[in-house]
Amino acid sequence: MMIIDSRFENDSIFLADLSLSQLRLMNDGELDWFILIPKREDIIEWSDLGQEDQLLLNQEINMLVNLLKELPEVKKVNVANLGNIVSQFHVHIIGRKFGDRAWPGPIWGTKSSLPLSQERIQFWKNAKISK
Amino acid sequence: MMIIDSRFENDSIFLADLSLSQLRLMNDGELDWFILIPKREDIIEWSDLGQEDQLLLNQEINMLVNLLKELPEVKKVNVANLGNIVSQFHVHIIGRKFGDRAWPGPIWGTKSSLPLSQERIQFWKNAKISK
Repeated sequence: MMIIDSRFENDSIFLADLSLSQLRLMNDGELDWFILIPKREDIIEWSDLGQEDQLLLNQEINMLVNLLKELPEVKKVNVANLGNIVSQFHVHIIGRKFGDRAWPGPIWGTKSSLPLSQERIQFWKNAKISK
Repeated sequence: MMIIDSRFENDSIFLADLSLSQLRLMNDGELDWFILIPKREDIIEWSDLGQEDQLLLNQEINMLVNLLKELPEVKKVNVANLGNIVSQFHVHIIGRKFGDRAWPGPIWGTKSSLPLSQERIQFWKNAKISK
């Protein structure tokens, strides 16, 4: 069983187990912000994932980008692996809105003034997430 | 011929033409900061690239991540598509250093106090970049 860094547990909630990754939703009441954490050990950098896993990762990214693109308020989807703070490999997929709290700058390091609502959690639990 | 957004021309220099992407080096004298711009038209979001192109993109990302990982001063490689300002699809691959000007926060939106040196341009022109 893969161990998820406890900082993910504090900042986000579990949404689904996908083929490669655990999908989590950040505790952000202003933006739809997903995290994909591949269920593999000792992955730090993008290139540490094997080719098959990269194919799966791209499929999971595509699915989430497409879900976010359907939301009329989403102006651009940001896809990123930073990992400067939490090294366990993870990819952010974030639906950025025109005029959001960091627009057009990067969102990392800023905090939402609103917590994630139960309604939004339910919205994503009911979404068509391919596993 | 693909047209490259003029803002890339202002902020970065051409390094190489790869299978999928034009590879450019940001005008940053503090960090090694690559940009991959796929030579395809009308690509805005990650999921706009077809599966074959995503495979090539991942290969190009892997190569650059591996080149940066070899540098002892690089603590973490950041890989990201933001595109909030320049919408033409591009991926940043950045060798972040412990204690760099934004560490451990995101680097986008910050400016280097040093211009890119001719020595560093030559270093990357001489690097083993698989095309």
